[in-house]
Amino acid sequence: VGLLGTSIALGLRARGVDVILSDSSPTNVSIAIDYGAGRSATDGDEPQLVVVCVPPDVTAFVIVRELSAYPRAVVTDVASVKKPVLDAVVAAGADVTRYVGTHPLAGREKGGPMSGRADLFLGRPWVVAGHPGISYQTAAAVDDLILDLGATLVEMTADEHDSSVALVSHAPQVVSTLMARQLISAPESAVGLAGGGLRDVTRIAASDPGLWVQILGANAAPTAAVLRGLRDDLDEVLAALESAAADAPVEASGTPATPASSTSPAPAGSTAVAWRRMLAQTLAGGNAGVARIPGKHGQDKRYAQLVVMVDDTPGELARLLTEMGEEGVNLEDLRLEHSPGAQIGLAEIAVLPEAVQKLTAALSARGWRIAG
Amino acid sequence: VGLLGTSIALGLRARGVDVILSDSSPTNVSIAIDYGAGRSATDGDEPQLVVVCVPPDVTAFVIVRELSAYPRAVVTDVASVKKPVLDAVVAAGADVTRYVGTHPLAGREKGGPMSGRADLFLGRPWVVAGHPGISYQTAAAVDDLILDLGATLVEMTADEHDSSVALVSHAPQVVSTLMARQLISAPESAVGLAGGGLRDVTRIAASDPGLWVQILGANAAPTAAVLRGLRDDLDEVLAALESAAADAPVEASGTPATPASSTSPAPAGSTAVAWRRMLAQTLAGGNAGVARIPGKHGQDKRYAQLVVMVDDTPGELARLLTEMGEEGVNLEDLRLEHSPGAQIGLAEIAVLPEAVQKLTAALSARGWRIAG
Repeated sequence: VGLLGTSIALGLRARGVDVILSDSSPTNVSIAIDYGAGRSATDGDEPQLVVVCVPPDVTAFVIVRELSAYPRAVVTDVASVKKPVLDAVVAAGADVTRYVGTHPLAGREKGGPMSGRADLFLGRPWVVAGHPGISYQTAAAVDDLILDLGATLVEMTADEHDSSVALVSHAPQVVSTLMARQLISAPESAVGLAGGGLRDVTRIAASDPGLWVQILGANAAPTAAVLRGLRDDLDEVLAALESAAADAPVEASGTPATPASSTSPAPAGSTAVAWRRMLAQTLAGGNAGVARIPGKHGQDKRYAQLVVMVDDTPGELARLLTEMGEEGVNLEDLRLEHSPGAQIGLAEIAVLPEAVQKLTAALSARGWRIAG
Repeated sequence: VGLLGTSIALGLRARGVDVILSDSSPTNVSIAIDYGAGRSATDGDEPQLVVVCVPPDVTAFVIVRELSAYPRAVVTDVASVKKPVLDAVVAAGADVTRYVGTHPLAGREKGGPMSGRADLFLGRPWVVAGHPGISYQTAAAVDDLILDLGATLVEMTADEHDSSVALVSHAPQVVSTLMARQLISAPESAVGLAGGGLRDVTRIAASDPGLWVQILGANAAPTAAVLRGLRDDLDEVLAALESAAADAPVEASGTPATPASSTSPAPAGSTAVAWRRMLAQTLAGGNAGVARIPGKHGQDKRYAQLVVMVDDTPGELARLLTEMGEEGVNLEDLRLEHSPGAQIGLAEIAVLPEAVQKLTAALSARGWRIAG
């Protein structure tokens, strides 16, 4: 009855399914029952589907135990690594016709039963890591679970899954952690200059070390493969920066090729060409990589953004949104930005591109200040 | 008349200052004038303060030119590196009593005059990189500029500034870029699993390569110093992951020390102890590092969060905020989260901790669904 187990239970309860809860912590089971996630086990329970939502290092053990305890049940799990779990279940000689591993790509920073949310999986990818031994009944039961919870079913082999999450989840965790670690011994004045970029890069560095030691340990080889690629690129960047540092400092007395223009002056020599070209290619590669990430609703190119200044007084944002509604414009996404200490917030509003011009004019006429 | 120049001009115009605009692009000057940022130059203009807002590689050149063109003016700049610029201005034999470099820690993803915002600097740190040769008049003029624009003045030497921004801005840019680069050749199915963590880590990888080649080139040595520390840590993580990969896979048939509990079972041997301890220490170091970053307004521990489900229909969010106002609760921060394809959005609302319980009860009574 952690985040994922409770969320699955709440989603199934909302569809009227009889959900039996189990956890190594009786306190957490009680909390989850009070929360409406299901009931405690009674003698003679015969679950049709067992969903194992435990830490990665005990997932295979619990799957094997449940396959044995309930010989007619389909068993699945939601651990964030799939190949080591499948290998261990097979190695234990368990009945794998009734087991298939899955992984919902959904989460929040919080854990525990009270963090559970019936809608946690809505529209999120949920990987089914199939294997040749699986029965039709097993596949159907697990597919139904995923679709009933509103997730998008993605089929992959266990190996494909593990190398995919190494790339999009486990390596980014390490990268974020390593960047954050560099701040430990920094002067207070330096961290005081932190802006949104550093905050974003290091946000997931706040994740639970206990859980991540297990995840990284269980998916060590695929994660190391991604990080070795990154380390090689980093070595090239370091070599380029060392060449740059060895170059002459910024010129002030000479005349640059195009003074005060926004294009770079012609580089002075071949070393300069080499490090500039290397850094430019790396940075452009970053642009290309980030462009491959599917857009979040509202940051989508389908929407246009409008920034409206909103006084930091009660009711002002509500008034803005009410007036947008009166203009017949639907809000696709909204983010409120506050500078520390400022008396004004900036409401970043995403709307359909064809509505922007009309809305800008209408809000201006109503006295709103449009910031961009 | 890029982002910073136009924003400074707009802020000064709002205080009635006569602002003269200059740019290598006459088109951009016209746009900025239409935007209300100031006027074009006329014969006999005698500016008291010249603010140089040009790319880093031509900053020193323009400073020296302006010091010479206006022998009574104080000259400052806003480039994101300070020591190479100061060295070049000194080396050119310019009158440094009238020059002091600064750097406002403010920005947006967009550039150009139309991205300018009079409130861009509100509450943001703005570094003044003083030097021994500076006159009282110079220091006072630049301090006034910063305070008039609502920023927080931070005094540092040029060296302190450059190593600080290497840590909180330039190294994170490289890290984000390198992570994003690993996505270039990934299968579509893998990037399809991307979640908020990867998006956050790689957001600034979308930055302009041309500008960043200049910034990294100008601050190469301090940035390389941070990245070498990170590379050494990465090598340790890689060694730990390689030990982990060499270890036995997850056990399923044996009995873990504490089956199905949320704590890790006792490690099997000394290698396992070593890699687990190493990863745990690194991850905990990341926790400690990220905790040093000063909180953003609203993500602050001063506020408590409430998540309310809001139907994706016009007016619903406005109704929620109106009803919060009726309950007398002030909104400290708000973020709307939309799952792709979902008909429900999640409004993450930050309020004062003492208001949470009352607000939860009141909103529930009014029929709102509270998700967490």
